[in-house]
Amino acid sequence: MTREEALQNHVEYWLAELADDKSPEATWFDDLSEDDIAFTLECLPFDKRMQVWQVVPPSRRGAVLVELHDEQRRSLLKAAPPDSLLQWLGRTDAEDLLELMDDLPSQLGRTVLKRLDQEEREQLQAALSYSDDQIGRWLSFNVITVQSDTSGRLFRKALRDTGVPELTDVIVLVDEQGRYQGALSLDAAMKVPTSLALIQFVDPELTPLNPAVSLHEGASAIHSSGYAMLPVVDENGTVLGRFTAHDALDVVVEEQERQMMHLGGGGLEEEDLFSPIRRAVPKRSVWLGVNLLTALLAAWVIGRFEATLEQWVALAVMMPVVASMGGIAGSQTLALAIRGLATGQLGAANVHSLMRKELIVGLVNAVLWAVVVGLVASWWYGSYVLMGVIAFAMLVNLIAAALAGVAVPWGLSRMNIDPALAGSVILTTVTDVVGFFAFLGTATLVLSFMA
Amino acid sequence: MTREEALQNHVEYWLAELADDKSPEATWFDDLSEDDIAFTLECLPFDKRMQVWQVVPPSRRGAVLVELHDEQRRSLLKAAPPDSLLQWLGRTDAEDLLELMDDLPSQLGRTVLKRLDQEEREQLQAALSYSDDQIGRWLSFNVITVQSDTSGRLFRKALRDTGVPELTDVIVLVDEQGRYQGALSLDAAMKVPTSLALIQFVDPELTPLNPAVSLHEGASAIHSSGYAMLPVVDENGTVLGRFTAHDALDVVVEEQERQMMHLGGGGLEEEDLFSPIRRAVPKRSVWLGVNLLTALLAAWVIGRFEATLEQWVALAVMMPVVASMGGIAGSQTLALAIRGLATGQLGAANVHSLMRKELIVGLVNAVLWAVVVGLVASWWYGSYVLMGVIAFAMLVNLIAAALAGVAVPWGLSRMNIDPALAGSVILTTVTDVVGFFAFLGTATLVLSFMA
Repeated sequence: MTREEALQNHVEYWLAELADDKSPEATWFDDLSEDDIAFTLECLPFDKRMQVWQVVPPSRRGAVLVELHDEQRRSLLKAAPPDSLLQWLGRTDAEDLLELMDDLPSQLGRTVLKRLDQEEREQLQAALSYSDDQIGRWLSFNVITVQSDTSGRLFRKALRDTGVPELTDVIVLVDEQGRYQGALSLDAAMKVPTSLALIQFVDPELTPLNPAVSLHEGASAIHSSGYAMLPVVDENGTVLGRFTAHDALDVVVEEQERQMMHLGGGGLEEEDLFSPIRRAVPKRSVWLGVNLLTALLAAWVIGRFEATLEQWVALAVMMPVVASMGGIAGSQTLALAIRGLATGQLGAANVHSLMRKELIVGLVNAVLWAVVVGLVASWWYGSYVLMGVIAFAMLVNLIAAALAGVAVPWGLSRMNIDPALAGSVILTTVTDVVGFFAFLGTATLVLSFMA
Repeated sequence: MTREEALQNHVEYWLAELADDKSPEATWFDDLSEDDIAFTLECLPFDKRMQVWQVVPPSRRGAVLVELHDEQRRSLLKAAPPDSLLQWLGRTDAEDLLELMDDLPSQLGRTVLKRLDQEEREQLQAALSYSDDQIGRWLSFNVITVQSDTSGRLFRKALRDTGVPELTDVIVLVDEQGRYQGALSLDAAMKVPTSLALIQFVDPELTPLNPAVSLHEGASAIHSSGYAMLPVVDENGTVLGRFTAHDALDVVVEEQERQMMHLGGGGLEEEDLFSPIRRAVPKRSVWLGVNLLTALLAAWVIGRFEATLEQWVALAVMMPVVASMGGIAGSQTLALAIRGLATGQLGAANVHSLMRKELIVGLVNAVLWAVVVGLVASWWYGSYVLMGVIAFAMLVNLIAAALAGVAVPWGLSRMNIDPALAGSVILTTVTDVVGFFAFLGTATLVLSFMA
């Protein structure tokens, strides 16, 4: 049984108890970690979540809040009486406070900051000066710094006293003023001869991260470094902390969850499985409204050909096929381009090559499926004219789909708009409009020649 | 400039040189790592990639192959003369061979295995006995194992001699036969008093991974452990190796790339940005064919109402709006359900609660947008009857969308089919069919009453 399955069993038991009108009990959390409690809370329908939250021991609430997703955390914080918040945050350390700071009432934030000792407060304030998307905002503090002239023997002796925090395989060297001098692997530091200084064994390839770097870039730096952590050092040489492989994992897992929500269009990225109705409805409405505009555009195009449709009703039956095949073909190219942009492998150097290749692939598939759809249409309606018209429209639409499948995400990324989000709706608008126009327009022309 | 941007500059320069009919040169790779070379090769159009590959120094080719994506690696291996393969693999170690083994001709695989020393060969063969989706297949070997009765003093002395591999923050204890006895953090091991045995300080919470566990599960175990690595131990207590935070990162990044391709439907997961036309066309055709069937189903539904469409052409114009709004609303619910299934937060315990919530959200949005679309239709066509018909059809379709948005991914996941892949096409088939049927069916009824 995986951890998720085990936790689902807890949720099932709780929901059954609550359905029997029993009250939640504090003992429910006895053998759950804060991470587990956060997971199970997110599994509960909104009203039940609020009910269960009341019995989470106050001393654990701060740590649970840290583990929750933004949306869920905000709703719990919003419902909390202000005095109790200070109590919940009693035991949270500087790193955890950093996670919560944005969501705390500003007055409370200041109070909490004052309670920290000076070093922690300075660390926290430095971190808070970076934006949500920079690693400076999300770093952790327990990095081992050593005076650069420390000898191998002294280093090993000191290490035994201080210990080695988890995820530590890099040692940071600083001068007397605490400024960054270089770094070397824990392995290399362990092997420095007794009386030589660590600075002589600095690894020039081990480059620290700048705190202003984006989360995505930080994660990929960790990924290609091979280390469990990299020091984070600002322009003045101050060692602000470290960014670890676990931070990188958090970044990628969050990206992944956000990306799954892109399937549902815009505005949903942070939606909670059980967000309250009054929050869920407006979020979804905006995207439905955007889609309505594109759908009405397609309807307007069809409306231009009412006379043709009245003459030949088979066109109305077959037109969604043309639009839909274009949409699917375009999505295939779109997916490839979006992945290429995300990995950084699609750039100005090769975007034309990609377009050329997709055009050829699109053309081959267009010919193939134009023939198939043409045959189906002529079989259904016994009309060679319909066969020709639909085959031609398919050809046009699948070629348009291939071009738009590269051009739309490329253009969006040039404008710094996430192509994964807006790409799909723009692409299908293109394939709908081109599909309906090519099909009904060609039919209109053919009918006028035949008349 | 990020690493990706710097590498794109290389690609740009190479493509310009090749366009001038110059030959690629081995010096192009002088300041690139194997990882970088793999990245740039994947950026090149297929024929150019083959051309550039010819000048990658043979001694580096094994390591480059390891870094490539499966599809790209296979195409390069396929084109390679068999004798040269053995030369390329000359310097690759057991871990890297593990990555390549599946793609090597079986005869060559056996030859390569024979060249390893016995310990490495046994490790490799144990790993090869697990499937592609199990961590046993992808583990790494450099884990520190220590006799469980080793004293603190001896451990620290030995550590200095052997060194600490990257990503090591856990020490594994074994008995004389090499069987797993427990594990403790490197930190705890460093602090074990001089004459006490390490076994006394074993961390009972540090549970090893079973090699049969799935990659996804392994990654999430690392994620929640807080360590840079976990030992991998089979049922007999044999320590097979370790699974690291970097392995977890690889798993999540690969999942993420695969997931991006789901936007393009089935069969594309592994497609290369520049796969050759003859490979790309068949892959895409299959999915286009599946979609054609669903599109023809929708067309067939419309075809049942030809008489109604002939009577009232406005229906043909407005029908895509009903279908499309249903598709979008359904996708929003679908995205939420797919993410819930992926994180493990949606299960048997709360799927009914989710359906209830989505139904309410769907209902509110259905009423809202039914009114808006009804008003637009009556404004375009000046018909209150059309307004009523389209509003009713929207209501029906958005409710169907909310139900299908939960039921379809839930059902697919019960059948062990990835809902992210097939969910979208099934859902839009439902919303197309229900949308067309509700709209045209209601119109037919209304017309027959009015006649």
